[in-house]
Amino acid sequence: MRFKFPFVAICLQLSMIILFGLFVGYENKWQYYAIPYESWVFFISLLWDIGNIHVMTFLGFGFLMTFLKKYGFSSVGINLLIAALGLQWGTLIRGILHHRQKFYIGIKNMINADFSTATVLISFGAVLGKISPVQMLIMTTLEIPVFAANEYLVGEILKATDIGASMTIHAFGAYFGLAVAGVLYRPGLRRRRHDNEKSVYHSDLFAMIGTLFLWMFWPSFNSAVADTGDHQYRAIVNTYFSLAACVLTAFAFSSLVEQRGKLDMVHIQNATLAGGVAVGTCADMAIQPYGAMVIGSIAGIVSVLGFKFLTPIFAIKLRIHDTCGIHNLHGLPAVVGSIASIVAVALGVADKTTMAKQAAALGTSLGMAIVGGLLTGLILKIPIWGQPPDQNCYDDSVYWEVQYTCFVHLKARILSKSCAVM
Amino acid sequence: MRFKFPFVAICLQLSMIILFGLFVGYENKWQYYAIPYESWVFFISLLWDIGNIHVMTFLGFGFLMTFLKKYGFSSVGINLLIAALGLQWGTLIRGILHHRQKFYIGIKNMINADFSTATVLISFGAVLGKISPVQMLIMTTLEIPVFAANEYLVGEILKATDIGASMTIHAFGAYFGLAVAGVLYRPGLRRRRHDNEKSVYHSDLFAMIGTLFLWMFWPSFNSAVADTGDHQYRAIVNTYFSLAACVLTAFAFSSLVEQRGKLDMVHIQNATLAGGVAVGTCADMAIQPYGAMVIGSIAGIVSVLGFKFLTPIFAIKLRIHDTCGIHNLHGLPAVVGSIASIVAVALGVADKTTMAKQAAALGTSLGMAIVGGLLTGLILKIPIWGQPPDQNCYDDSVYWEVQYTCFVHLKARILSKSCAVM
Amino acid sequence: MRFKFPFVAICLQLSMIILFGLFVGYENKWQYYAIPYESWVFFISLLWDIGNIHVMTFLGFGFLMTFLKKYGFSSVGINLLIAALGLQWGTLIRGILHHRQKFYIGIKNMINADFSTATVLISFGAVLGKISPVQMLIMTTLEIPVFAANEYLVGEILKATDIGASMTIHAFGAYFGLAVAGVLYRPGLRRRRHDNEKSVYHSDLFAMIGTLFLWMFWPSFNSAVADTGDHQYRAIVNTYFSLAACVLTAFAFSSLVEQRGKLDMVHIQNATLAGGVAVGTCADMAIQPYGAMVIGSIAGIVSVLGFKFLTPIFAIKLRIHDTCGIHNLHGLPAVVGSIASIVAVALGVADKTTMAKQAAALGTSLGMAIVGGLLTGLILKIPIWGQPPDQNCYDDSVYWEVQYTCFVHLKARILSKSCAVM
Repeated sequence: MRFKFPFVAICLQLSMIILFGLFVGYENKWQYYAIPYESWVFFISLLWDIGNIHVMTFLGFGFLMTFLKKYGFSSVGINLLIAALGLQWGTLIRGILHHRQKFYIGIKNMINADFSTATVLISFGAVLGKISPVQMLIMTTLEIPVFAANEYLVGEILKATDIGASMTIHAFGAYFGLAVAGVLYRPGLRRRRHDNEKSVYHSDLFAMIGTLFLWMFWPSFNSAVADTGDHQYRAIVNTYFSLAACVLTAFAFSSLVEQRGKLDMVHIQNATLAGGVAVGTCADMAIQPYGAMVIGSIAGIVSVLGFKFLTPIFAIKLRIHDTCGIHNLHGLPAVVGSIASIVAVALGVADKTTMAKQAAALGTSLGMAIVGGLLTGLILKIPIWGQPPDQNCYDDSVYWEVQYTCFVHLKARILSKSCAVM
Repeated sequence: MRFKFPFVAICLQLSMIILFGLFVGYENKWQYYAIPYESWVFFISLLWDIGNIHVMTFLGFGFLMTFLKKYGFSSVGINLLIAALGLQWGTLIRGILHHRQKFYIGIKNMINADFSTATVLISFGAVLGKISPVQMLIMTTLEIPVFAANEYLVGEILKATDIGASMTIHAFGAYFGLAVAGVLYRPGLRRRRHDNEKSVYHSDLFAMIGTLFLWMFWPSFNSAVADTGDHQYRAIVNTYFSLAACVLTAFAFSSLVEQRGKLDMVHIQNATLAGGVAVGTCADMAIQPYGAMVIGSIAGIVSVLGFKFLTPIFAIKLRIHDTCGIHNLHGLPAVVGSIASIVAVALGVADKTTMAKQAAALGTSLGMAIVGGLLTGLILKIPIWGQPPDQNCYDDSVYWEVQYTCFVHLKARILSKSCAVM
Repeated sequence: MRFKFPFVAICLQLSMIILFGLFVGYENKWQYYAIPYESWVFFISLLWDIGNIHVMTFLGFGFLMTFLKKYGFSSVGINLLIAALGLQWGTLIRGILHHRQKFYIGIKNMINADFSTATVLISFGAVLGKISPVQMLIMTTLEIPVFAANEYLVGEILKATDIGASMTIHAFGAYFGLAVAGVLYRPGLRRRRHDNEKSVYHSDLFAMIGTLFLWMFWPSFNSAVADTGDHQYRAIVNTYFSLAACVLTAFAFSSLVEQRGKLDMVHIQNATLAGGVAVGTCADMAIQPYGAMVIGSIAGIVSVLGFKFLTPIFAIKLRIHDTCGIHNLHGLPAVVGSIASIVAVALGVADKTTMAKQAAALGTSLGMAIVGGLLTGLILKIPIWGQPPDQNCYDDSVYWEVQYTCFVHLKARILSKSCAVM
């Protein structure tokens, strides 16, 4: 950490400046008095979207991960670091891929850069607490080009429909992250549940700030790049109702699967968002509000069941340890969403010829994510990146100046000493 | 709780899906290229409003209630649950009431659904910590139709002016909640102040997140359904200055009424918002900025005095225990607002014929709220809904998996053991 | 505190009402059907900006200052109080200065009032924890007229370019606050680092809420008053990329300057925002995205170095104790920004004749800030305003009802008793 991290960060930033100097210019269509008001309306509409998506990316994802009792600084801080790098790198890679020459950025490019960043942040959830900041920077640098290539393939070559990016962002991000987590698997972390891999009361409340901002602004996420007019309108309405339905089934099943019928904060923080992921692919189709609600309801159920039954299987049998449960929040609901889009197409909501494209797009996204993730994992496994030892995982004090406040716990009336971060 | 809660939640969600299938369709006016840009501007303006109002409903109300030291999960979590149900149910009930047949939802319907939800969340504040999630779901289901009927009566039949909904949302929600709290009164909770009914330092900070978002976005709340143009402009300006003035008087009186001149966080969290409630009814009238400031100043004072002097009287004499003090934040300021609107009309700011309408609207809102609340309270009193026993009130651990961290308190140099949620 | 504070607050609010009655009216251009849609688009665009800037002012600045372990109530609460007064007073003073008679407020006036308020809140950071609420009210009342005079001078007389207000808000606010802090210097506070002048784990997380909202919405801050069209577009794009670049260099240098290579939360909370300040002056110039990134990168470095090396020098040698490090977040980056604007002009990005204006504007801003701050400090030093004694600094319990939860700390396995706010 001593010099590696600053060195890598500065080199990356210098490269960004040089590459931006070579490849990125301003759009020239905003001259005062020259712009028609239609363009201006469009401009403001994009500003509204990027504002909300920015909040989701930086605050939503950041605070969602603060649930760990000793890992809040890294969750929010490293999230900011990765996102700041991802914005620049995502803008560049997508621009160069689409234009093959110097290109001119508009607000839409910036929204798309936020999307590349979101993908990395999803993957981050699988390895949270187990890798170093240097590893995160490298993972960001490697994941975004694969993401951009897949997105180009799905959108420009296959021309599949994926307006809310269930496949290109959520499924891709989740399976990329799981593949990395699989390669980096450390048996020492699973012998028994790591003492730091737990929440405390107020860390769960901080995480709810993230959940709520993601929940509230998800309609922007799913509608930002939709065609103006009825497509955008439907993407907003469908996402809104899918999310609302998802909350009720997530609460119901969270209570159902727990022995004493109690609610589990992990489910509420995550599964209530699954409706936004699942409705993504067909968000702008005329699936009707009740159709969106059906998709959301199923997503909420699937997500809770995933947390309860799949996560332990992944960790023990498949040797993939997924810190935040991204498979349940992003992976499974994205698959639900892809299937929903195929059903929607089969039911005649959209053009039948898109059916094969949708399946191909899902397959491509999963394939590129897993292959990309495995390779990235192998590079991250090289033991020069300062990966924290098992006993220091999920612990901010490895990378941050932290004033620990140790205090006395009373458990079952027995005085025991333990340390916790306050 | 074991099966009742999931059963009720799933049944409600299934009903919503079926009813949406029967009654709710898309608006058809957003075809690409067909929409005039005027409509699009209107669309974006509504999106801006719904974004802000969504934040108030889900984050604002949710976090405002996290002030209790052991009840944050329920405050934020059950708030999300109720709001998600309320959005769907509110959309339906209002749509059916206004159209009596299949109807087509636009963003404005969604804003109005947020308003129905806000009403329930206000009432929730009076019974916070004392009722079960099942009771909350039932209360939501019962309150929204009464709210919608009253709103229809006030707006369509009486044609009263209530742009910021001081009467139909704030007064209605407050008195409905108080009536429910009155029926559900439990003497055991008031013998002495319940040990859990207190805040701790950081729970008060979480609550301030709620306060600030409500404060900042209140101009959207009061202007969202105002007529485009000068009405909307005035609703924004008046709310903005009423809130600003309210802050100063709330701080001043918070200090004045406390024995040693200290500020009380309860007042700051709540009374600083009273200006938004009170200016609601006449927000779009030409009351002039200084008029709005007078209303806000009075509301701040009335609200603090309510917390200091009325709340104890309500709890002990009237046997109505109001957990969050909704009477002081919503009830009293709404009455101030109604009176202000009558004064404004008398002073010639608006048409004189509206004066009787305003009084009738206030009377109707109070009457329907109290009768509806009493009946709802009686239904909630049936002892099958899993209401928590007195000693478990204001305690998340009844309904949530909570890892308690017990620790040693030192009070006045005497070591005493006590448990608190960290 | 007993009566002084309520008395001052009520008098100020009464004066505001009277002055608004005399000087402030509504704009008359928003009659329904009369407004052209161009105006309406402009109106909505301003609403979007004011929403974001409001969040920065009330939530961003408020929570940024909650990093102190025992001073969260004052940080968020007194921030709200000052801002509410500042909005009203700022609207008035600017209006009267520009119109010299009754004037009519629009959304743009309200944005500018938010700017005056932001300036005071910046200065507040230097004296945080060391002065009383009464002193804060007086400081707000005195600082805003000096700010408005300087802004008038820079904008209307010198006609300098300062679209993001690096000079008129950030440099002015910082040096005004430092001058006040210098006059109010108390050697007792620096003999050793005050026990309360520290953060705890969760207070640093609360502060990150502030940081993130400031970071995310800064493009609105820098573009709100830019000319519609390419100026506004460039202000958004440049701020966005300057901030992104700034994050990477701030992280890198935070790690570099610490002995063991660890990150310091103070740097992350503050220096990641320096890019927004520094790019302010030339935000709307055609400096190209890579130019903005260079400015942001330098600002991040300068800010971290300031925290590490300058703050101790200021506190010990210059006898200026700067609680929040506003010199490093606002002062230094604003100077970087002014120099950047001079370089940009020299490189031909803008008209050469503006070069002298820019230097004059910086000089004027610094001069008026320092003189104004010194005079304000002298007035605040009069020992009748209830300034807290040294041992009660950075402690909410002087002005707020706080339920202290004392608990046992275990440090190095030795049981010691200490009190902390939980």
